[in-house]
Amino acid sequence: MSDSKKLIEFKVPEPTLRRLPWYLAFAKLVLKQEQLFLSSTQIAKNISVDASIVAKDLSYVKISGKTRVGYDVNELVDVLESFLGFTRSHKAFLFGVGSLGGALMHDDGLEQFGLDIVAGFDVKYELTGTSINHIPIHHIDRFKELQNQTGINIGVLTVPVEKAQEVAEFMVAGGIQAIWNFTPYRIVVPDNIVVQNTSIYAHLAVMFNRLNALKELDENQ
Amino acid sequence: MSDSKKLIEFKVPEPTLRRLPWYLAFAKLVLKQEQLFLSSTQIAKNISVDASIVAKDLSYVKISGKTRVGYDVNELVDVLESFLGFTRSHKAFLFGVGSLGGALMHDDGLEQFGLDIVAGFDVKYELTGTSINHIPIHHIDRFKELQNQTGINIGVLTVPVEKAQEVAEFMVAGGIQAIWNFTPYRIVVPDNIVVQNTSIYAHLAVMFNRLNALKELDENQ
Repeated sequence: MSDSKKLIEFKVPEPTLRRLPWYLAFAKLVLKQEQLFLSSTQIAKNISVDASIVAKDLSYVKISGKTRVGYDVNELVDVLESFLGFTRSHKAFLFGVGSLGGALMHDDGLEQFGLDIVAGFDVKYELTGTSINHIPIHHIDRFKELQNQTGINIGVLTVPVEKAQEVAEFMVAGGIQAIWNFTPYRIVVPDNIVVQNTSIYAHLAVMFNRLNALKELDENQ
Repeated sequence: MSDSKKLIEFKVPEPTLRRLPWYLAFAKLVLKQEQLFLSSTQIAKNISVDASIVAKDLSYVKISGKTRVGYDVNELVDVLESFLGFTRSHKAFLFGVGSLGGALMHDDGLEQFGLDIVAGFDVKYELTGTSINHIPIHHIDRFKELQNQTGINIGVLTVPVEKAQEVAEFMVAGGIQAIWNFTPYRIVVPDNIVVQNTSIYAHLAVMFNRLNALKELDENQ
């Protein structure tokens, strides 16, 4: 669902970055069960990923396991959380306080994973001065001014699809360097801008299709 | 971010199902601009996907373009929406009315893409009888009874990570056949159960990493 810029070679491959949070989730679970050590084989077995992939993924993270006992779980959790950027607070602006934008402003979970939405912007004057979950909503005209004041460089894009490209360009012109794009539109931005596409609705299409396919299989049996 | 079950061969590949919503979004945009025909080359150019991939993807959908003019945009939108399951209403239950679960209940956009969350379930007695965005919240104990009454077979999983596996098993035992898993935990379920993993927080990790990598590049120049 996402683009890595082809022109820049990143140290950590995107599939690795997407799997590391699974290992973190599992390590946290194990920690709650008061288990102190965890091997890559154990991780692999529990989350159905090849042990060699787990080991390779963890090689990007600065942690070393002990022979026979594996990784210290406390250390693994700490190192992964920090490596993934979840322990730092990254302030962000949200663009488009519609249904999905409002929903994301309601989700305090984002903050636990390092994303702190500090303001929402919208074109609707009736939203100006209101707030959702204590996050203020401003008219979009105030974005540049507030960006200058704060230096915030992450933008969450939740506008209607037909505005996605236009607003993305406006965000970039105003100083945004990373766009978390929740629209199903494939925005085009300069190469030095990070785009993370998260079209949750596209995932729905996969789920519906698989559910139907299984139903057809059942009916033909 | 998602699993296709390895034992079952599905007709439409998952990458195709994930790209089709992009084409739909673009076709809708074009329709608003009152353009009547659209070629796969035009789609390809605008959303940075190879033209051959666009043509191949669209070959799974029952639509044929006209030589030189391309696809009828109205037809393309209708056919894609219906193919992707967005025109049918799929009723679903949500499990775990925490921050993210509540946020998803706030998102009316899901309904436009065919998902209708009709009830939320939680273990917290204080939530029982309340509602979010007119969607009632029940105690989890009532799930089986309500599943029997309604036959609803889609479940959205938004419980805390340490409960993910347990609740997934409970959902399956109670008649759920497709799980939209928003937890970062890799749940293990029988092969005939559809799992769609959407860990939005994992996408954050990719975005943070790319942003840092670009910053480092900048500093080294």
